[in-house]
Amino acid sequence: MTLIPKALTKEAFAPFGDIIDCDPDKAVEINWGMTQRYHGLGRVEAVDSDEGERGSVALNIFRGTPIDLPYQIRMVERHPLGSQAFVPMFQGRFLIVVADPVDAPGPEHLHAFIAAAGQGINYHRNTWHHPLLAIEDGTDFLVVDRVGEGNNLEESWFEDRAVPLVLA
Amino acid sequence: MTLIPKALTKEAFAPFGDIIDCDPDKAVEINWGMTQRYHGLGRVEAVDSDEGERGSVALNIFRGTPIDLPYQIRMVERHPLGSQAFVPMFQGRFLIVVADPVDAPGPEHLHAFIAAAGQGINYHRNTWHHPLLAIEDGTDFLVVDRVGEGNNLEESWFEDRAVPLVLA
Repeated sequence: MTLIPKALTKEAFAPFGDIIDCDPDKAVEINWGMTQRYHGLGRVEAVDSDEGERGSVALNIFRGTPIDLPYQIRMVERHPLGSQAFVPMFQGRFLIVVADPVDAPGPEHLHAFIAAAGQGINYHRNTWHHPLLAIEDGTDFLVVDRVGEGNNLEESWFEDRAVPLVLA
Repeated sequence: MTLIPKALTKEAFAPFGDIIDCDPDKAVEINWGMTQRYHGLGRVEAVDSDEGERGSVALNIFRGTPIDLPYQIRMVERHPLGSQAFVPMFQGRFLIVVADPVDAPGPEHLHAFIAAAGQGINYHRNTWHHPLLAIEDGTDFLVVDRVGEGNNLEESWFEDRAVPLVLA
């Protein structure tokens, strides 16, 4: 079994999150015609923890080390308290691995996508996903997520059933 | 009078907002050493309107038309209900014009900055600023701001005292 990324389309990715790209359906002209605003491509979610801790929404940069392919996928993680967006600060591709919304996903629940240049993504709250999978030289991503108190990380490991991620 | 952009440094920009870049002081190693997280570079603010309207935080893309220089600065705007981040989705520069926190800023209150490749910014809530000033071919910016009901826009015009923005 190998995991081969599919093109990142709105339909295919809808169960997992939003695609952040210049969708012509979302275009609005602003600033006297000087700017196209692609409006409301993703919504940032940040909820209180069970202990009532509010948290806040932060802007961060993740600088990834490009992975070697094939790359062994051994786990996924999710964030129960908030969404998490990854938007490249360069024009280039990156890989995405997500899993179905079961309690403890394994290899049979995985889906892989490849983002084209100009595409970012926003994982919905509680969506299983692999940490950042950079494949190009440009590896800085703006990350928008919840920070603060409360347990906002769960992991599901399947170390003994690792799946190689390849390009088609 | 002309407006000449200064380098975008944390100290100089502090009264107006956050700089979103790979500040080594904010680096944390995550994902088994595969990723550097530059943590909490900016905080997203979204407050309720006077009418109690909550709003939410959205991810958008602004695609700017590069300006011709010198460019006449005739106004600034501000958003009373939330912060607004602009992070380039390309490795390149852009210009920033902000104004001091007075009621109706004019030319004498303006400050200009030039962001280096790899730098974005997050205007604090209620900070006077000019709309997007793209100067390069790459002109897509991720914008993180409050959307929803409530008046989140104020403008200050000084049309008859326009100031030319130039590069040094």
